[in-house]
Amino acid sequence: MSRERLYIFDTTLRDGAQTAGIEFSLEDKIAIAGLLEELGVDYIEGGYPGANPVDTAFFETRRTGEAVFTAFGMTRRAGRSAANDPGVMGLVNSAADAACFVAKASDYQVELALGATTAEHLEGIADTVRSAVAAGKETLIDLEHFFDGFKANPAYALDCVRTALEAGARWVVLCDTNGGTMPSEVREIVGKVLAVAPGDRLGIHPHDDTGQAVANALAAIEAGVRQVQGTLNGLGERCGNANLVTLIPTLVLKPYYAERFVTGIAPEKLEQLTSISRAFDDRLNRAPARQAPYVGASAFATKAGIHASALLKDFSTYEHVTPESVGNERAIMVSQQAGRSNLLTALARHGIVLEKDDPRLENLLATVKEREACGYSYDGADASFAVLAHRVLGTLPSFFQVEHYRAMVERRHNALGEEVSVTEAVVKIRVEGELLMSVAEGNGPVNALDLALRKDLGIYSARIEDLELVDFKVRILDGGTGAVTRVLVESRDGGGERWVTIGVSPNIIDASFEALYESITYKLLKTEACADSAVDGHANRPALASG
Amino acid sequence: MSRERLYIFDTTLRDGAQTAGIEFSLEDKIAIAGLLEELGVDYIEGGYPGANPVDTAFFETRRTGEAVFTAFGMTRRAGRSAANDPGVMGLVNSAADAACFVAKASDYQVELALGATTAEHLEGIADTVRSAVAAGKETLIDLEHFFDGFKANPAYALDCVRTALEAGARWVVLCDTNGGTMPSEVREIVGKVLAVAPGDRLGIHPHDDTGQAVANALAAIEAGVRQVQGTLNGLGERCGNANLVTLIPTLVLKPYYAERFVTGIAPEKLEQLTSISRAFDDRLNRAPARQAPYVGASAFATKAGIHASALLKDFSTYEHVTPESVGNERAIMVSQQAGRSNLLTALARHGIVLEKDDPRLENLLATVKEREACGYSYDGADASFAVLAHRVLGTLPSFFQVEHYRAMVERRHNALGEEVSVTEAVVKIRVEGELLMSVAEGNGPVNALDLALRKDLGIYSARIEDLELVDFKVRILDGGTGAVTRVLVESRDGGGERWVTIGVSPNIIDASFEALYESITYKLLKTEACADSAVDGHANRPALASG
Repeated sequence: MSRERLYIFDTTLRDGAQTAGIEFSLEDKIAIAGLLEELGVDYIEGGYPGANPVDTAFFETRRTGEAVFTAFGMTRRAGRSAANDPGVMGLVNSAADAACFVAKASDYQVELALGATTAEHLEGIADTVRSAVAAGKETLIDLEHFFDGFKANPAYALDCVRTALEAGARWVVLCDTNGGTMPSEVREIVGKVLAVAPGDRLGIHPHDDTGQAVANALAAIEAGVRQVQGTLNGLGERCGNANLVTLIPTLVLKPYYAERFVTGIAPEKLEQLTSISRAFDDRLNRAPARQAPYVGASAFATKAGIHASALLKDFSTYEHVTPESVGNERAIMVSQQAGRSNLLTALARHGIVLEKDDPRLENLLATVKEREACGYSYDGADASFAVLAHRVLGTLPSFFQVEHYRAMVERRHNALGEEVSVTEAVVKIRVEGELLMSVAEGNGPVNALDLALRKDLGIYSARIEDLELVDFKVRILDGGTGAVTRVLVESRDGGGERWVTIGVSPNIIDASFEALYESITYKLLKTEACADSAVDGHANRPALASG
Repeated sequence: MSRERLYIFDTTLRDGAQTAGIEFSLEDKIAIAGLLEELGVDYIEGGYPGANPVDTAFFETRRTGEAVFTAFGMTRRAGRSAANDPGVMGLVNSAADAACFVAKASDYQVELALGATTAEHLEGIADTVRSAVAAGKETLIDLEHFFDGFKANPAYALDCVRTALEAGARWVVLCDTNGGTMPSEVREIVGKVLAVAPGDRLGIHPHDDTGQAVANALAAIEAGVRQVQGTLNGLGERCGNANLVTLIPTLVLKPYYAERFVTGIAPEKLEQLTSISRAFDDRLNRAPARQAPYVGASAFATKAGIHASALLKDFSTYEHVTPESVGNERAIMVSQQAGRSNLLTALARHGIVLEKDDPRLENLLATVKEREACGYSYDGADASFAVLAHRVLGTLPSFFQVEHYRAMVERRHNALGEEVSVTEAVVKIRVEGELLMSVAEGNGPVNALDLALRKDLGIYSARIEDLELVDFKVRILDGGTGAVTRVLVESRDGGGERWVTIGVSPNIIDASFEALYESITYKLLKTEACADSAVDGHANRPALASG
């Protein structure tokens, strides 16, 4: 039986940027577009070129591989042609493959917000679409206030749909702009729109103001639309847009939809979903929602008791899909066996091959669990996992020992009466019996410690020359300034490999130092095979900061 | 037109207790029952008497006023009578008004989990219900796995419904135990159940594993059920139960439902909803979800300039209900995208009233944009916005000046050879001409600075006594340890007000100090009206850290 194609349109970088407290840099946008391509969405809406410097720069070059690179803007203003509207031309002249223009499907809103007549607005829709199509852009029209507009004046709302399609728009998107429409209303109204437009040229853009953005998207799909818009982790204005991380697995894995529809996302790709969702939160520096459908840390968690024992007999009892299908994990420790096989896979990734019944495996598993209970999280810090594994297995060379470090920040007035900050760090290490002491100034205490630590590593200096820190993240695990701090450091070397290390401490400086220390240790481990120094007999205590 | 009565059944204290990481004490249960009564739910399911000491103690006395006090348990075991089953008798002999017994509507689950035949299980349902009814309890049967069971063997699932009702159960509750059923399936299956049971004796118990618990509850209500089960803030196993805080306002405020149904919750009571939801999170010691429908801090937040100006013309443009109706507030965010109308609204929130054409407005807007380009973000730091506005407008009292500060972290070995960290901060301030110098140790440099700064504020000390830091967040704005750091500090005072301040600097210590400094300044501003010191003539440069 042939299945109909559904198109996934991501607007994280445009509507998601409306989230309170979120401000994307150009670097953020490039990285997030990368995550979206990894997932395999069909369209990536990148922002509004011309509206602010970041978005303008983002659209200077094509930023996607497979996905349709889409720019957002407004239809031309009343009283001027699209060709003379700098807003419209900003999209048309950008590096985007597609242009999505917003128009208003509510006669009341046209008069209230634009001060124009509906006839003028329809003309603007047609003119804008024709200009963009003539310039070779795939063209979409977002119809703002569509459902409220339809309830008040269905004839005008349908005129908007018809006008856009007749002018050549590939898609007309029905927006539930204030998020107040119920799934049953969406179903009923979409049914009426189908009288003037085929479903494979209609999209749905829901908001979560009644907690039903995903349900509204699915109701519209059931009723006939074939494009669905949403964001990673449900970012977006007010309560957010439809959460694609929830919607996509439902479409791909649940037979109710999977038997009728096909998306551009293969089931294998879904196995990256949990890590993509968490990488996105990492970039925003927010804690992932524990109860998030499919990808939350609790999504497959069962408390011990009556449920757990039934679960052990048949996982489908309390799991409607498998955790593996979305790259998540069952949070009940069903058997040490399951934990072991995960661990063996992770070790193999770092070239450590152990037998399944090696007793050290049990010890490593226990250590990982104990440290995770203290705030470590090896999910996102694979290099620290490698260092920990070598340490527990007794195969970590004792490259160098940290004897002492100190960081100081002072804010005062200088001789000219100007305010200055002075930041200074001192690190004393021991390499092959030799004491090396370095001091450095930095922008802040962590930067100064990083510079001091790497200034002189004796015989190892050459091996860390190409090491570069590319990211540094801090998360406070409980409230208040006295809480436990988790630091993640991302490093890169000349060969382009990137790795992440972790440090945890109530003291942000100690946590940072631990992550810096582990990054260097990982780099030394990595280059150990090609280095002269032998591994055997070096499995001592690694360094002061690692305890 | 007469509206049908819908019954709200809260299971926060029973199914909500299955949430990973949640453990209710007896005190918690009593306090939460109080919140639920304030809201006005019809049923409060308090737990499983006999299963653990807390629940047993909770059911020793009747804990509700208006709401039906409900105990949960299992139907009697195969092979014994209900009267001889201590589990069933635990409920029957408790102080509960109603008893809710769980049974399995899936033939497969009956065999797998209970090792019984379906005939035995049906007999157990009937016997249990008759015993509880005879003892004067209003009786409910929760049918676990109802939807999956119905799909596999509809005849047996319907037998369960029929058996329970014929034995005298007031309600039979259809449970989507693994949360995998779609709203369209719920609608279709409920339609078939109506052939054997009237809707006013049917309930729905959905889970949020596909993000559609609320939509499933509404689909079941539309199809005919008249009781709906859920929890405060969507607590519950895995992804949680249906969130009553989302569902209730939809039922009460949205005409689509309010015209057809009436609940026990009067519209006036809904004005307590936001504070009840937040009080519940406070009790659980977790941060309220910012994007939660209706009650989230962002639920009525608008950031975009174009949206904000349309919003000011007619709030219904981007608000499907008013924030006041659920006791929430409109938040018009100040950000790079802001226009004057956002700014005027934000100023009014802090009691600063300016004319639309006041030239200082342009100056403030330019300052906000300039600072946001450096990494500040005022949409998440409203208290810092207030401080900045007073500063730019020349109305900020010069409470105290920071002359100097210093923070030091040292990691070394102590006399016993143990590794220790010592963190110490010194702060020197000037208050009304007097120099005050304080020193403190802390868990980390920010904690030490916080303690030292607040140790002695001279004449202002009494006014910050109830100031408490509740959260501290750090974000690195570009990669590397030399990058710009943004710190957000959340504070709270004795009256329960919370506010967020921001600091930005390449130096994490300076950024943190700035946010701490602004939090104290905001608190002093807030208490200025009731304080003795005059405002006039104090509009000097505020302090060293604020530049």
